[in-house]
Amino acid sequence: MSRFFSAKYASLVPYTPGEQPKERKYLKLNTNESPFPPSEKAKKYAAEAAEHLELYSDPECTPLHAAFAEMCGVDKDMVLATNGSDEILNFAFMAFCDKDTPAVFADITYGFYKVFAEINNLPSKVIPLRDDFTINIEDYFGAKGTIFIANPNAPTGIALRRDEIEQILKANPDNVVVIDEAYVDFGGESCISLIGKYDNLLVTQTFSKSRSMAGARLGFGIGSKALIADLKTIKYSTNPYNINSMTMAAGIGQLDDEEYTRKNCRTIAENRDYLTSELKKLGFTVLDSKTNFVFAKSAKISGGELYTELRAHGILVRHFTAERISEFNRITVGTREQVDTLLGAIRDILEER
Amino acid sequence: MSRFFSAKYASLVPYTPGEQPKERKYLKLNTNESPFPPSEKAKKYAAEAAEHLELYSDPECTPLHAAFAEMCGVDKDMVLATNGSDEILNFAFMAFCDKDTPAVFADITYGFYKVFAEINNLPSKVIPLRDDFTINIEDYFGAKGTIFIANPNAPTGIALRRDEIEQILKANPDNVVVIDEAYVDFGGESCISLIGKYDNLLVTQTFSKSRSMAGARLGFGIGSKALIADLKTIKYSTNPYNINSMTMAAGIGQLDDEEYTRKNCRTIAENRDYLTSELKKLGFTVLDSKTNFVFAKSAKISGGELYTELRAHGILVRHFTAERISEFNRITVGTREQVDTLLGAIRDILEER
Repeated sequence: MSRFFSAKYASLVPYTPGEQPKERKYLKLNTNESPFPPSEKAKKYAAEAAEHLELYSDPECTPLHAAFAEMCGVDKDMVLATNGSDEILNFAFMAFCDKDTPAVFADITYGFYKVFAEINNLPSKVIPLRDDFTINIEDYFGAKGTIFIANPNAPTGIALRRDEIEQILKANPDNVVVIDEAYVDFGGESCISLIGKYDNLLVTQTFSKSRSMAGARLGFGIGSKALIADLKTIKYSTNPYNINSMTMAAGIGQLDDEEYTRKNCRTIAENRDYLTSELKKLGFTVLDSKTNFVFAKSAKISGGELYTELRAHGILVRHFTAERISEFNRITVGTREQVDTLLGAIRDILEER
Repeated sequence: MSRFFSAKYASLVPYTPGEQPKERKYLKLNTNESPFPPSEKAKKYAAEAAEHLELYSDPECTPLHAAFAEMCGVDKDMVLATNGSDEILNFAFMAFCDKDTPAVFADITYGFYKVFAEINNLPSKVIPLRDDFTINIEDYFGAKGTIFIANPNAPTGIALRRDEIEQILKANPDNVVVIDEAYVDFGGESCISLIGKYDNLLVTQTFSKSRSMAGARLGFGIGSKALIADLKTIKYSTNPYNINSMTMAAGIGQLDDEEYTRKNCRTIAENRDYLTSELKKLGFTVLDSKTNFVFAKSAKISGGELYTELRAHGILVRHFTAERISEFNRITVGTREQVDTLLGAIRDILEER
């Protein structure tokens, strides 16, 4: 820290992203990326955009907003594209929380919510999950703050139904409820269809998971025109020309090939169910995942040890040291071949013990 | 504005970027883009990166940081890549200003400084330029705040010498001085060579102007390891995976072809001097520009009228309504052919009066 760094950030602990190792080739099952490349159209459109980088990108993201809004079945003024869904989440913390309106979120959820609250000097209200890692929706009724719920949740993988989210929306009419649907395409119920009914609902989505574009940084907010207008005020006060023109083009290409996305999601869901059942045969406890990862623990080996042993076998998974979940690992669902490689390694590790 | 928008932003007025018109084809001389495409290597590397967007980009930007640091002659821990230089500037406002440390900047300068101060709820101290639009460096001595100086300045185009900046650095040893070198490659003196000597110096640069990559969103901060570490804390607390992998690849490609950049800068400088002398022949007052734009006014036609007439001729320039500069237009220097098209239109407009 320099002697010039503002004291307001003295205790700020940044988010720790999953490892992106450079020293050797690992089977990467640690950051919930897609094992499938982006669609051919995404690659082609992005390469075409790279020919004309000398011009600023369209600050209004007009064609991308139109394409995404059409896919969602909403008006184009009800969506906003950002640099990944992290950016739209940060904007929501900025726009809809303040010293009298805390950010409300679960103890076990996307670790960035805590960081977003801290970087924006906002109070937080942390609500523990139940012992079985499910959300008790009644804990969120009348929460007197801006609610952030990852649905399906990470790293548990467990989803709330749409009608459960609707009860939370009804019980907090004067506060924004942000539903972070990063993983919704793998089996959850999206709340986009509720947007017309609830002016306090903001949905966020990302192209990093189901749409194979983690490296492009593309996310979206979807909500009422008034909420989106507020978020645009933040965008135009921080980085008006984002997103860049290559990512915009790739996003349009990916949306032009929605059947490819859906096919990949079906494959991942099948592989997830296969991985879940095989892990259970090996004695693992596996939470009920609606995502492209599973959250699993074994009675035979600790979470930390399994992480370390898998790493020695050339496989990266994600281990969190937080108290309630330190026995678990979060394992990305890859191709069937990758799942089998993982299972083979786990069998070897358990046999050696 | 929604009923949920935080009251802290009630008076926030976002930055207004230059028009990016979609309805017809204009000669765009309004946002200081390069008339030259990115280098062939930039296009090629970006297209290659588009093939593998399913993986997150390297949050540490390792090869890009190495290439840029080498070009600057500094250690790789002394640079940080961001989404355009707007992002590194915003990070600097966040990191180095607070309620007791105002942001200090000129009345006529990059309009975003005011917005960055407001979005971060920071006090500002505005220092007027002299009547001739030059900076009186003594006004910044002992300024008791974090100083932001665009050098060369925008929209005036006027540059301070390095030894003048050095006097400001010496006179503010306990405050960060940010030198925004967006336009330095067209004839200004960079302060990067002073970084080893002054721990309070942060230089920012962009690939949007001299390096033909406005659409890619790539900027840099260059400073002491301690300052860069602070800015990384902000980055990893907002959007750790930015920048995206295509922009990263394009940036490496562009740096691999530095002679191309230098040749383009020489051409722009020649065209600027030609445009300046031709405008003077037409009776314009033209400030002494070290950038890729000129700031000019005519006694024969008001700034607003010239802007409107040029627009009718299919040429966009940038007009600001702020009191001291409303008689001027900021005109981007394009190719020789574009400059001649502009001059032809101006001659027509003046003759018709």
